[in-house]
Amino acid sequence: MARRLLGKEVTAALNEKIKENVAALKAKGISPTLGIVRVGEREDDLSYERGATKRCETLGVACEKYLLPADVTQEKLVEVIHQVNQDDKIHGVLIFRPLPKHLDEAAVIQALAPEKDVDGITDGSMVGVFAGTKQGFPPCTPQACMEILDHYGIDCTGKKAVVVGRSLVVGKPAAMMLLKKNATVTVCHTRTVDMPSVVKEADIVIVAAGRAGVVDDRYVSSGQTVIDVGINVNEEGKLCGDVAYDKVEPVVKAITPVPGGVGSVTTSVLVGHVVEAAMRKYSI
Amino acid sequence: MARRLLGKEVTAALNEKIKENVAALKAKGISPTLGIVRVGEREDDLSYERGATKRCETLGVACEKYLLPADVTQEKLVEVIHQVNQDDKIHGVLIFRPLPKHLDEAAVIQALAPEKDVDGITDGSMVGVFAGTKQGFPPCTPQACMEILDHYGIDCTGKKAVVVGRSLVVGKPAAMMLLKKNATVTVCHTRTVDMPSVVKEADIVIVAAGRAGVVDDRYVSSGQTVIDVGINVNEEGKLCGDVAYDKVEPVVKAITPVPGGVGSVTTSVLVGHVVEAAMRKYSI
Repeated sequence: MARRLLGKEVTAALNEKIKENVAALKAKGISPTLGIVRVGEREDDLSYERGATKRCETLGVACEKYLLPADVTQEKLVEVIHQVNQDDKIHGVLIFRPLPKHLDEAAVIQALAPEKDVDGITDGSMVGVFAGTKQGFPPCTPQACMEILDHYGIDCTGKKAVVVGRSLVVGKPAAMMLLKKNATVTVCHTRTVDMPSVVKEADIVIVAAGRAGVVDDRYVSSGQTVIDVGINVNEEGKLCGDVAYDKVEPVVKAITPVPGGVGSVTTSVLVGHVVEAAMRKYSI
Repeated sequence: MARRLLGKEVTAALNEKIKENVAALKAKGISPTLGIVRVGEREDDLSYERGATKRCETLGVACEKYLLPADVTQEKLVEVIHQVNQDDKIHGVLIFRPLPKHLDEAAVIQALAPEKDVDGITDGSMVGVFAGTKQGFPPCTPQACMEILDHYGIDCTGKKAVVVGRSLVVGKPAAMMLLKKNATVTVCHTRTVDMPSVVKEADIVIVAAGRAGVVDDRYVSSGQTVIDVGINVNEEGKLCGDVAYDKVEPVVKAITPVPGGVGSVTTSVLVGHVVEAAMRKYSI
């Protein structure tokens, strides 16, 4: 039976570290604060916002909301972004996307100051991930994968890591982060020939294929650590990952469940970024 | 015997395309122009400058030089960069590096407008490579590798490609560019365990290890295409690549020599970028 890599264990440890850092900041009179920019009332956004707000509260991080109507103009939205950029009391900013179609999302994103880009969406953050520097912040999901590996003491140096998926939000940044951890990294995707044989060779597999159950027992071998980034709803209406858990779990050494794996770590990663942004600002 | 992938053949074909584009621009009264920013008189810079200037001349691209003393101030240099950014007659800019140590090179680079960054050094260009978009320009060396693959009709889709080296100037961008060409891409580096067995599996190998002769016959197998990015001087004072050519050539299907391979293509790639920058500017 595989070891279950549980998001809640990783989150608990992360939260402890975050609380320590928050205490250090507050001792210096700094109250780490997340600015949330939301346009309209999409249910997805509201649900994520509730989660983020609650996690912030638990960890002693303040939230400042900038709520705009769904028909907000580009000018007004960019003005709000400039305002949060300049506001010394806001350390990190979360902008819900996709934005309504009448808005130029790329321009809105680039208006955000990279040092406040705790969600890793600006060019500055992307360069940071690509170059392996501390410019901006990596996207929360691939970093959650790394936090899981770190928490369970899974050393990547010299290991074969395979990333399934080449998206800009997960696959590519995950590959860069594994490379920085000294893994030999392979990126597979829809055009990969005989993917099972490629994935089978890996010591560490990160699956961000975006399709339910695509990685099954033909893809895996004993001794592997499998991190499942997928969040899908199956035919029975239940949450499931990109990995066919029931088939894969009996074969591999360690695996993250869905739900209860990567997804549950991302919110703490986000809040951790807000705290880190505040610490960087004051060189703490 | 392996097919020799010759830089001069690739360059000749590239040059033809560039000349056509230059003619199209000139027909509209636009004279594509490279701005060269050089600080001091380093022999390396002067030698590269001679090559670039000559190639520009051959291809009908103008050169405008901005020559500054080795003790130029940061302010003055950045002022010059702003000047070329704003100059509508300059379409692409080459800044020689490394800059003298008293200068903040990162700040100088970021002062350059990404749309004129024909050498692929700004954050904007890096994001373009990472995201696979046409923002800025990729660094010339990895693009020269892709030009070689394209010229010789080596299709990457579904192929296994291995990049040896994870530098920001060659290894990482080459990996991203191969991924965009739909290859299954693996990045190896100094911490890779049993690199020969990993490289042996590849259909396409790009070697940017930065050490002479590191890839020898233990690393290769029949059917492979090997692109050697290395430029080293061996004990006898002769130029050589990162691949032990005499040992590898008899085994593989195709290989680039050093000299006469990748290196000889980069200058035309640079000039091609200047022309492309002009075409983008006027949407031609």
